[in-house]
Amino acid sequence: MKKYNFSAGPATLPATVIQEASMGVLDLDGIGLSVLEISHRSAEFSQIIERAEALVRKLLRVPEEYAVLFLTGGASTQFFMVPMNLLAETETASYILTGSWAKKAYKEAQLFGNVEVAASSEDQNFSYIPRQLDVSSDSVYLHYTSNNTIYGTQFHQLPDTDKPLVADMSSDIFSRPVDIQRHWVIYAGAQKNMGPAGTTLVIIRKDVVERAERTLPTMLNYKTHIEKRSLFNTPPVFPIYVSMLTLAWVDEMGGVERMAQINKEKAAVLYREIDDNPLFYGVVRPEDRSVMNVCFRLHDEKLNDAFIAMCNERGIVGIKGHRSVGGFRASIYNAMPNEGVQLLVETMRDFTQRYG
Amino acid sequence: MKKYNFSAGPATLPATVIQEASMGVLDLDGIGLSVLEISHRSAEFSQIIERAEALVRKLLRVPEEYAVLFLTGGASTQFFMVPMNLLAETETASYILTGSWAKKAYKEAQLFGNVEVAASSEDQNFSYIPRQLDVSSDSVYLHYTSNNTIYGTQFHQLPDTDKPLVADMSSDIFSRPVDIQRHWVIYAGAQKNMGPAGTTLVIIRKDVVERAERTLPTMLNYKTHIEKRSLFNTPPVFPIYVSMLTLAWVDEMGGVERMAQINKEKAAVLYREIDDNPLFYGVVRPEDRSVMNVCFRLHDEKLNDAFIAMCNERGIVGIKGHRSVGGFRASIYNAMPNEGVQLLVETMRDFTQRYG
Repeated sequence: MKKYNFSAGPATLPATVIQEASMGVLDLDGIGLSVLEISHRSAEFSQIIERAEALVRKLLRVPEEYAVLFLTGGASTQFFMVPMNLLAETETASYILTGSWAKKAYKEAQLFGNVEVAASSEDQNFSYIPRQLDVSSDSVYLHYTSNNTIYGTQFHQLPDTDKPLVADMSSDIFSRPVDIQRHWVIYAGAQKNMGPAGTTLVIIRKDVVERAERTLPTMLNYKTHIEKRSLFNTPPVFPIYVSMLTLAWVDEMGGVERMAQINKEKAAVLYREIDDNPLFYGVVRPEDRSVMNVCFRLHDEKLNDAFIAMCNERGIVGIKGHRSVGGFRASIYNAMPNEGVQLLVETMRDFTQRYG
Repeated sequence: MKKYNFSAGPATLPATVIQEASMGVLDLDGIGLSVLEISHRSAEFSQIIERAEALVRKLLRVPEEYAVLFLTGGASTQFFMVPMNLLAETETASYILTGSWAKKAYKEAQLFGNVEVAASSEDQNFSYIPRQLDVSSDSVYLHYTSNNTIYGTQFHQLPDTDKPLVADMSSDIFSRPVDIQRHWVIYAGAQKNMGPAGTTLVIIRKDVVERAERTLPTMLNYKTHIEKRSLFNTPPVFPIYVSMLTLAWVDEMGGVERMAQINKEKAAVLYREIDDNPLFYGVVRPEDRSVMNVCFRLHDEKLNDAFIAMCNERGIVGIKGHRSVGGFRASIYNAMPNEGVQLLVETMRDFTQRYG
């Protein structure tokens, strides 16, 4: 049975990418070697990583003054690398708290300077995006999490500030256009919209990398990776390869502008059913609903297991909400086809017919 | 044409592992999902990472008081994480310098405490393993690089000290038995003997992890990863999966004891040819020759390109020495079959017939 994978990440990838990746493991483009065994200094891998960088630059219109890096360690590593490199001990940075990941970023930054909360939606269990920001005049950057995977909220406009922005875009990068130049740094774990787990994209303005003037281990200094073009040490070859394939797919689909349109339509279908169906309800303030992670619940929570069971029967997997919030979450990243969303909607309707 | 890949890393993997990995990318064990899209919190991935850990413990006889971690960032990240977590500002650690990687580890450690050189073979271009060690009585650990990929040397006995050891085993882990209990930490990038690039194995004595008592970013604290069993954040799912497959292959082959025997025999065939062939010579002191990376040169360097060309014609790739030393290097890790070594030896003989 064909399965539709609504997991929040690692998440579904385009079917054609999975086929290409499987073939690349056997024999990369007919060179007689697996992509798993080629040297990271080989001509073949140079082409892969250069193509990946070129696709990032093309899709997001990244200007020349920004570096595009493929690192490891996930957003969790960027939580501390950003302030470690960019925030001096005596300086202040501001953070918007819109969920667990934003709070983790905030917590790690406290090791490196003065860190202030510009706004928080924790008062209502992170069910909305705060509009009112309190940013100190001497704050050097404002950090936000563009999409909140766990709570299902998303910034649909940039935070209202004239400060440089730093963004964790792990769960909505390449889902829509981004105004890169408003940012000092954008970072994203690959395992949602970009590829499989194992690499982290960092887009960083080259002239800010050493502003904190700390003595750092070589691997923790952005400058190292900019100078060596992500090849200071052995990079995660396969995750970068599959990310390149996925970005090429986004490009073929018409780029992030077209993806944004498709994503909006896909999400609208699902939110409409949640709003119309008498058994279910949405948990997020409507104007802040995420186009990527659709969080919803049953009014009668005793029916939760029955709904999960019906989903499983029909090949719908990964629909359970994050363990910290419960309910359901349908992650509908770029690679989730319309048919997957349609099947989920039909399943909700059939469920309501049986239990309503 | 079947190719034999003598690259130093990422390196050749067993043919059966490559086939299984390719199938897992299409559909993991028939579950209807790619290994690239399963959640790291899924039952499927739990089985994978638990099996990987169990195999590490079985193959290397890792005692209970040690944690087995699958991290990212390569040995280059361990170069600083080890002293950051284990060496207090006022303490001393000793390092044996046997090549570029050992020097990098030594350099990073200097940020965190007093770091001394216990011995160095730089005086003879790292062509031997120093026996005479000068370790301060107050030194807390002695760091060594068990196998030197670039220079082709290897420790065939543990360093002669009563200090706890810390070892970078990136290029010979799982090639032979190890006395784990003599070590505080053993670390290794996966991309030589363990799997593809993208994960780093760390075997660490649980009771030493917080001895430096530093306040650290969460991701840089070994304790985080021990408590969360490598699942604090999204781990590199696919590199861990393929490492698990590779370790299962080592186990099926008869474990590291049997691998050590096979590796010794493979290396002996190649070194014998180097010693007997009038055109080639070995660059390493014979008793310190690596069983993993066989470095050799042509007396007449003008013939280098011709030899590389003949190798390429016959499907031998990755034979060029590291750019910092030149000459040739045949990396013959666990997964290099005897036939590959035989083909290389025959090619050297044919080359000598033509050019000798």
